[in-house]
Amino acid sequence: MQTMALAMDKGGEELGSNLLSGVSLPAAVVHEGPLAHNVEWMQRFAEAHGARLAPHGKTTMTPALFHRQLQAGAWGITLATAPQCRAAFANGVTRILMANQLVGQANMAIIASLLEQGAAFYCVVDSHENARQLGRFFAERGLTLSVLIEIGVEGGRCGCRNQQQILSLAEVIASEPALSLVGLEGYEGVVHGDNPESGIRTYAKYLVDVAVELEAAGRFAEENPIVTASGSAWYDVIAEAFQGAPLQGRFTPVLRPGCYIVHDHGLYREAQSAVLGRRPDLQQGLEPALEVFAQVQSLPEPGLAIVALGKRDIGHDQLPIALRRFREAGEPSQSMSVAGWEVTKIMDQHTFVRLPEGAQDVEVGDIVAFGASHPCLTFDKWRQILLVDDQLNVKERMATYF
Amino acid sequence: MQTMALAMDKGGEELGSNLLSGVSLPAAVVHEGPLAHNVEWMQRFAEAHGARLAPHGKTTMTPALFHRQLQAGAWGITLATAPQCRAAFANGVTRILMANQLVGQANMAIIASLLEQGAAFYCVVDSHENARQLGRFFAERGLTLSVLIEIGVEGGRCGCRNQQQILSLAEVIASEPALSLVGLEGYEGVVHGDNPESGIRTYAKYLVDVAVELEAAGRFAEENPIVTASGSAWYDVIAEAFQGAPLQGRFTPVLRPGCYIVHDHGLYREAQSAVLGRRPDLQQGLEPALEVFAQVQSLPEPGLAIVALGKRDIGHDQLPIALRRFREAGEPSQSMSVAGWEVTKIMDQHTFVRLPEGAQDVEVGDIVAFGASHPCLTFDKWRQILLVDDQLNVKERMATYF
Repeated sequence: MQTMALAMDKGGEELGSNLLSGVSLPAAVVHEGPLAHNVEWMQRFAEAHGARLAPHGKTTMTPALFHRQLQAGAWGITLATAPQCRAAFANGVTRILMANQLVGQANMAIIASLLEQGAAFYCVVDSHENARQLGRFFAERGLTLSVLIEIGVEGGRCGCRNQQQILSLAEVIASEPALSLVGLEGYEGVVHGDNPESGIRTYAKYLVDVAVELEAAGRFAEENPIVTASGSAWYDVIAEAFQGAPLQGRFTPVLRPGCYIVHDHGLYREAQSAVLGRRPDLQQGLEPALEVFAQVQSLPEPGLAIVALGKRDIGHDQLPIALRRFREAGEPSQSMSVAGWEVTKIMDQHTFVRLPEGAQDVEVGDIVAFGASHPCLTFDKWRQILLVDDQLNVKERMATYF
Repeated sequence: MQTMALAMDKGGEELGSNLLSGVSLPAAVVHEGPLAHNVEWMQRFAEAHGARLAPHGKTTMTPALFHRQLQAGAWGITLATAPQCRAAFANGVTRILMANQLVGQANMAIIASLLEQGAAFYCVVDSHENARQLGRFFAERGLTLSVLIEIGVEGGRCGCRNQQQILSLAEVIASEPALSLVGLEGYEGVVHGDNPESGIRTYAKYLVDVAVELEAAGRFAEENPIVTASGSAWYDVIAEAFQGAPLQGRFTPVLRPGCYIVHDHGLYREAQSAVLGRRPDLQQGLEPALEVFAQVQSLPEPGLAIVALGKRDIGHDQLPIALRRFREAGEPSQSMSVAGWEVTKIMDQHTFVRLPEGAQDVEVGDIVAFGASHPCLTFDKWRQILLVDDQLNVKERMATYF
């Protein structure tokens, strides 16, 4: 049944096919070489900074990629929702950091079931109300839930806004026998302002200071409490703050970037360039690994190509970028230039590309590789992602669980 | 395996659960009453105008909904891509209008397989190149492909731009033994200008005129050639043009709106209001039927609620709209007001809601029903949609095939 279901989704292909012939396009592909590079690169980065890596799995929701991250040495997988945790655990991930509030009886029941099956699970809390709800629910089940206090910022997203709130929440957690306070969590991506780097350094130091203070007050139920933050844009700043003396040896610093695994052609390319600007010692940064291949379906006017690629196929917070072009059934090594190709609009199932003057050799059926900004919103358009080698042969069909 | 896979996706629930207790949220729901109303309403509308209805299935990609449309009398289902057609056929849809170009050998192979299995299938062409590609492919398979010429507009999307292109394409089609020209297709949604209504009336008349001209020239291979257009915003204008003497009795006029089935809380609500303005005789228009239910996860600052709902759960071309609020495990009949609640931002997994002054009774865990603009981009965020009755009991878990 599973096989049949996959065969009915878009992009379902036989292994051994080549992307340029025999694969129904559009299709989302991950390039094996850059993928392997990125997985290793970030693992080494974390280790070099004395931190554990719990890559954010919400980006890909692709267990085949989780396993590559774990095999490279990741400590666990970070996730955002109870169903995501259920999918990861069902696919063999046993240590899960849910960097989000666990809300709602049905979602609590999902997590209770994972705990009963032996999962190492942590989630975050930022309110008395949620702490009491969790305390009640897990006490009734006879289970203990490990929680981290979320540290937010004024004007940010979730998270306690000041030390008084943190201390008072720690007290509520201590009063709930079914809850165990095992650390602190933050997300620097919501820190804004004129000088984000300075703001994020201040925020990271604040996280460290609060952790030390709570530890001194005996608030943690675990010997090496977790302190965790970092997305894929400012992981270097967070790692430097966590590398200092106050945490090393006494805490478990955890970085949890997600997008790094396939990087991107927009937002994170810029962020990575800033990282390498701050840290010239980091050699050969991340490489974009995720692309969507699609075909020209119409050339209705001079200078206009309509491509069979839509909002349902690729992230579109920013317009996709044409990267390379191939002739259908052509040679993977013979890519053609797309210099001057400009995506001007994207609809549900169509992309408009303005062609440069003199682009005479474009044909209906030509295959174009597109890159996007923000990989999370490309992955979630697909039930499977094709892993390809540098000859564009399909090596693996990786199921997603959104 | 299928059951397990569903159980691992978000929103997987036991039947008989109530949305306010026992269902993991967020979840996408379709309300049974408005759904049934809309399906009947549009079917009656098409019949009253002497047209067939081939609802655009790309909106929902939910075969359980296709079957409701077919049972109400729909002539077939419209789709946009070869994998969509494959999924529909595998789920019992036998007449398929692919209102899009069929491009790429792998996609052609998918359609060839459907033809071999007995599907009644039509797709559109707008270029010599694509016609020759299709002619060659289907001739090699010993199959006949029924095609419609797509009629576009200058500055629009796909489609022939003028009559000369149309006539010359008709000749190319006639020269390909494996192709059979069975009609014309257009999409008025790409007609723009200062006065869209006037532009669309002109476009609709042009479609009719070209159809009559091609018929007079003996270009159609079928006795009652298909003439088809219409999305969910201007179907009344198209239907009126198709209702005139030139088409009735000699052609098969086909309307193919898609979004009407669940309507929406944005773009199509406005469009429908315009339809009822143009056509006061149409009683009781469409009703919004699709909502996403989600829970408040944090109340980190006065006047701010963070809801566990993200770009991966709901269409966000426009920001979602809070419609009603319930207490978790409360009574479905006791909804609370969300007057003054304003969504200010949506991230991958979080929605920011600005609360009105004095909104003191909001609790973490409160359940909020959200509406969105443009249902297509909400459906495709889900592998299953919950059909609920007016007591919010889950009646059916409808699988989607994106």
